[in-house]
Amino acid sequence: MKKSLIALAVMAAAGAASAQSSVTLFGIVDATIAYGKGSDGAASKTQLTNSGYNSSRIGFRGTEDLGGGLAASFWLEGSLGNDDGTAGQRIPVGNQNGLQAPNDGAGLVFNRRSTVSLSGNWGEIRMGRDYTPTFWNLTIFDPFGTNGTGTTLTLVAPAGGLGVAANALVPVGTRGVIVRASNDIGYFLPANLGGIYGQINYWMGENLRNANVSGVSSKNDGTGGGVRVGYGAGPFNVAAAWAKTKYDVTAVNGVFGGPTGDFTTWNIGGQWDFGMAKVMGHYTADKRGNSAFNGDTDGKGWLLGALVPVGAGEIRAAFSEYKIELASGAEPKAQQLALGYVHNLSKRTALYTTVARVKNEGGSAFALNGAQAVVNNNSTGFDLGIRHSF
Amino acid sequence: MKKSLIALAVMAAAGAASAQSSVTLFGIVDATIAYGKGSDGAASKTQLTNSGYNSSRIGFRGTEDLGGGLAASFWLEGSLGNDDGTAGQRIPVGNQNGLQAPNDGAGLVFNRRSTVSLSGNWGEIRMGRDYTPTFWNLTIFDPFGTNGTGTTLTLVAPAGGLGVAANALVPVGTRGVIVRASNDIGYFLPANLGGIYGQINYWMGENLRNANVSGVSSKNDGTGGGVRVGYGAGPFNVAAAWAKTKYDVTAVNGVFGGPTGDFTTWNIGGQWDFGMAKVMGHYTADKRGNSAFNGDTDGKGWLLGALVPVGAGEIRAAFSEYKIELASGAEPKAQQLALGYVHNLSKRTALYTTVARVKNEGGSAFALNGAQAVVNNNSTGFDLGIRHSF
Amino acid sequence: MKKSLIALAVMAAAGAASAQSSVTLFGIVDATIAYGKGSDGAASKTQLTNSGYNSSRIGFRGTEDLGGGLAASFWLEGSLGNDDGTAGQRIPVGNQNGLQAPNDGAGLVFNRRSTVSLSGNWGEIRMGRDYTPTFWNLTIFDPFGTNGTGTTLTLVAPAGGLGVAANALVPVGTRGVIVRASNDIGYFLPANLGGIYGQINYWMGENLRNANVSGVSSKNDGTGGGVRVGYGAGPFNVAAAWAKTKYDVTAVNGVFGGPTGDFTTWNIGGQWDFGMAKVMGHYTADKRGNSAFNGDTDGKGWLLGALVPVGAGEIRAAFSEYKIELASGAEPKAQQLALGYVHNLSKRTALYTTVARVKNEGGSAFALNGAQAVVNNNSTGFDLGIRHSF
Repeated sequence: MKKSLIALAVMAAAGAASAQSSVTLFGIVDATIAYGKGSDGAASKTQLTNSGYNSSRIGFRGTEDLGGGLAASFWLEGSLGNDDGTAGQRIPVGNQNGLQAPNDGAGLVFNRRSTVSLSGNWGEIRMGRDYTPTFWNLTIFDPFGTNGTGTTLTLVAPAGGLGVAANALVPVGTRGVIVRASNDIGYFLPANLGGIYGQINYWMGENLRNANVSGVSSKNDGTGGGVRVGYGAGPFNVAAAWAKTKYDVTAVNGVFGGPTGDFTTWNIGGQWDFGMAKVMGHYTADKRGNSAFNGDTDGKGWLLGALVPVGAGEIRAAFSEYKIELASGAEPKAQQLALGYVHNLSKRTALYTTVARVKNEGGSAFALNGAQAVVNNNSTGFDLGIRHSF
Repeated sequence: MKKSLIALAVMAAAGAASAQSSVTLFGIVDATIAYGKGSDGAASKTQLTNSGYNSSRIGFRGTEDLGGGLAASFWLEGSLGNDDGTAGQRIPVGNQNGLQAPNDGAGLVFNRRSTVSLSGNWGEIRMGRDYTPTFWNLTIFDPFGTNGTGTTLTLVAPAGGLGVAANALVPVGTRGVIVRASNDIGYFLPANLGGIYGQINYWMGENLRNANVSGVSSKNDGTGGGVRVGYGAGPFNVAAAWAKTKYDVTAVNGVFGGPTGDFTTWNIGGQWDFGMAKVMGHYTADKRGNSAFNGDTDGKGWLLGALVPVGAGEIRAAFSEYKIELASGAEPKAQQLALGYVHNLSKRTALYTTVARVKNEGGSAFALNGAQAVVNNNSTGFDLGIRHSF
Repeated sequence: MKKSLIALAVMAAAGAASAQSSVTLFGIVDATIAYGKGSDGAASKTQLTNSGYNSSRIGFRGTEDLGGGLAASFWLEGSLGNDDGTAGQRIPVGNQNGLQAPNDGAGLVFNRRSTVSLSGNWGEIRMGRDYTPTFWNLTIFDPFGTNGTGTTLTLVAPAGGLGVAANALVPVGTRGVIVRASNDIGYFLPANLGGIYGQINYWMGENLRNANVSGVSSKNDGTGGGVRVGYGAGPFNVAAAWAKTKYDVTAVNGVFGGPTGDFTTWNIGGQWDFGMAKVMGHYTADKRGNSAFNGDTDGKGWLLGALVPVGAGEIRAAFSEYKIELASGAEPKAQQLALGYVHNLSKRTALYTTVARVKNEGGSAFALNGAQAVVNNNSTGFDLGIRHSF
């Protein structure tokens, strides 16, 4: 997901002597024939969709060498719905609860990443819309990179409630701060720390302060932060992360509803590259607390998987599980087995296929690729596609 | 419409030895002073609009040589409303009946074309949002290229019902699959077949299957396909095409209504280049059938036109006609005569003007350039503009 | 705001011998930590926002040399909300009263400028969405360039009514034609007139003509025009401008209301570069007249400011005032003092900070950086940010 794809040779108009500068136009167009089989008596679906292997995207980024080890850089990257021509997704202008951003074919926004940075040998300060620290362990230590029908349950379950909206751990009616946060200020450790890496982030809800202003019952809604620390050396890589976002209003702009409560998540992940296979896994524990409506809700999940190089290709396999512990005592749980193969036609272009099978228990109704599952029934997903990057 | 406009010299980051690769940023900015005269007693309008000669657009495309004759490529192209700064049009995420995408100043989407392809000496497989096979004969064999006030009636009449929404041959409340389809998989013949060319397409409605899922009464709505075959040699070019899209629900997402019924269209077009003039024409037959509401509706139209090179410019002329045969027996009909001149300042920049006159009969109320026409009255359109491509 | 930032080396596909042509991808990513302090008892706010020094943007522009001194060019530039990844703002497709374009995270539109031009030694004809002639004197002769917490009151007061919507001089429910107009045709004087420069513009409301068409009560709503003339020589620069936009309906598309009345504005501005400081100022007089609802409303404002170079940086200071004269006799008035410093790390990258203080009188409630002010109380704004251009 972080490949440097195409570098446009550019001349800085300023013409400064120190300018080893570049602007890069980059992107991925990934088209997927996706089939989702619902459980018996429920509905299946066939689609041409996108991002079965890597997230489709288009972006602009660049770096300016300021001299003395200092550099300024920017990164603007938006989603691409190349199956139907949509770009971006309408996004909430902020992180608050209740902000809804319907994806109705709206236009290009830099919803994947939109940042400006200043960096030096002391690290990097980055401001804008960026990934949360906790997201990284779920996607890096997932053989399917949180894309396609094989995506780890540990990523999709907290927001989706395992197919039952009432079980969701982030408030209904919001995209929530799970993968990314807007209005974020982050600090990243420099690369030269002997394998230690890390970041700390703070994102703002941007609400009015002073409770006596009409209609504003909360000043912290959508505000949060997180931290991630890891260590990589040779074949070994491990990292842990924690994040919390406050949700303390029940309705914003008349949109929402649903239970409130801060969302807290922490996880740990790691991998070992044995050469013939890269084995990886992660564990995550999520919590929505302080709810006035239905008490705490907890979620716990894990993944174990592997990447096996085979000639010009790669076999991918993963088993993931997620269980939600509702205040009612119910414990919906889903387990998923995913198996896939990627065949590289070049560094930029690959054909791929994935098959995944989900087993639902305890009130879970998670289904794959747009199918519908009856509670406690199973679902199967199948992807066949092409990924082309530029 | 398919010019290669600007090639940015790029270096593929992968640096593969086989990489004869490029990414192209391209576009057209076409501004038009457009006047539409309504019939007596009805309303006229003057606007600064766009796309009077060529459709305004902005896009990114590229090709990667994979070796052995194989290539991967992508094409992302969106509409441009350069008169007011809008880009793209909000588009339905799918092809289904009832999906409405209001054009209210939303942002850049790749609504004109959004595809990824794999091609070889066996042809090309293309996936995403693309033109229908039937559209090509209407635009290639129209001297006005289906742009501006001279656009052939055979393109605009089926969706617009000749100015009376109830007469439309595609369902009300949908953009319909006339010019383009989303979620499309196409196969194109290779170029080396001695002048024979062709394509076959299949587009998906992406509905849930299994009738016993609540609220889903149809599984085929928006699904369709088509085929086009042609032959070009020397001054001669002819092609025929057929397409069908299923519409079998009356409301989707509470948006719509209107009559249902599959939309079927076929057409044939051709041209002969006499040197001093390129003469062209086409015939189209459209049908909305299987309607539970008001029986079959048929539409038939044709065009005869010519392009006459004159120094650095070109004279354009066309006569087109379209007649709708309603189930009620009524037969609204419109005829249009269009005359224009394009003066090329360079290969990229042209000045142009077009005047068109429409005659309405039998209940038709078609009007030009945003004017309004009383039923069976006439309308006149005038364009004056500049087309600049990059 | 008009720097040429990056020129991509391009090869015109047309390959014309005369083609000294280029396409430029350019942009600014400006991130601001912005704090706004409300008055006692009212609400303050802290945000990560954008455009505290220069407006964040992304754009494409290019020029084609047509030979003989003639050139064609285009300019497509959209807003960038880099703090949350939004791009553009949904914009009304037209200039009419009542057209509302909610900024709800929609996608990239070329709302800042979207034009195509033909130019020669006789000047330039430009068509599309462009700045009004009157805007230029407010932004050029403001040390803060109408960006950030120090933005001159003379720009923001007419539309915002000094914090009280009922006081606004442009109709409620419209973005109004203050900074830019869509559907605009402009003529600009050539550069070789011995220091004299100027432009004249006409923008269209694009309404239907003929009063007897149902639902259309006005044919001129949103139509307007303006003119600007200036003279610059050595350290001296002065310019005057006038513009008027007609608003003569009370509701369009059921969106609006509010008072009607044409909006007229004129202003004069100038600066003198003393070397150690560039001193500048401007005066503006606005008027909403012919109102059937509440009579004329007038607004008057002025600014005096300076830019002082200090090593690699620049100190900025300005005092601005705006007073609204309501038909009721009330006269809300605000005064603002702003002080800032910009430190250039390079020509492309700068760090900056600004502090501003507003004093409200006579019913004014203007507040800075998203804070809220009680009527006749004060507000303070503080910006700290980084501007990176490409």
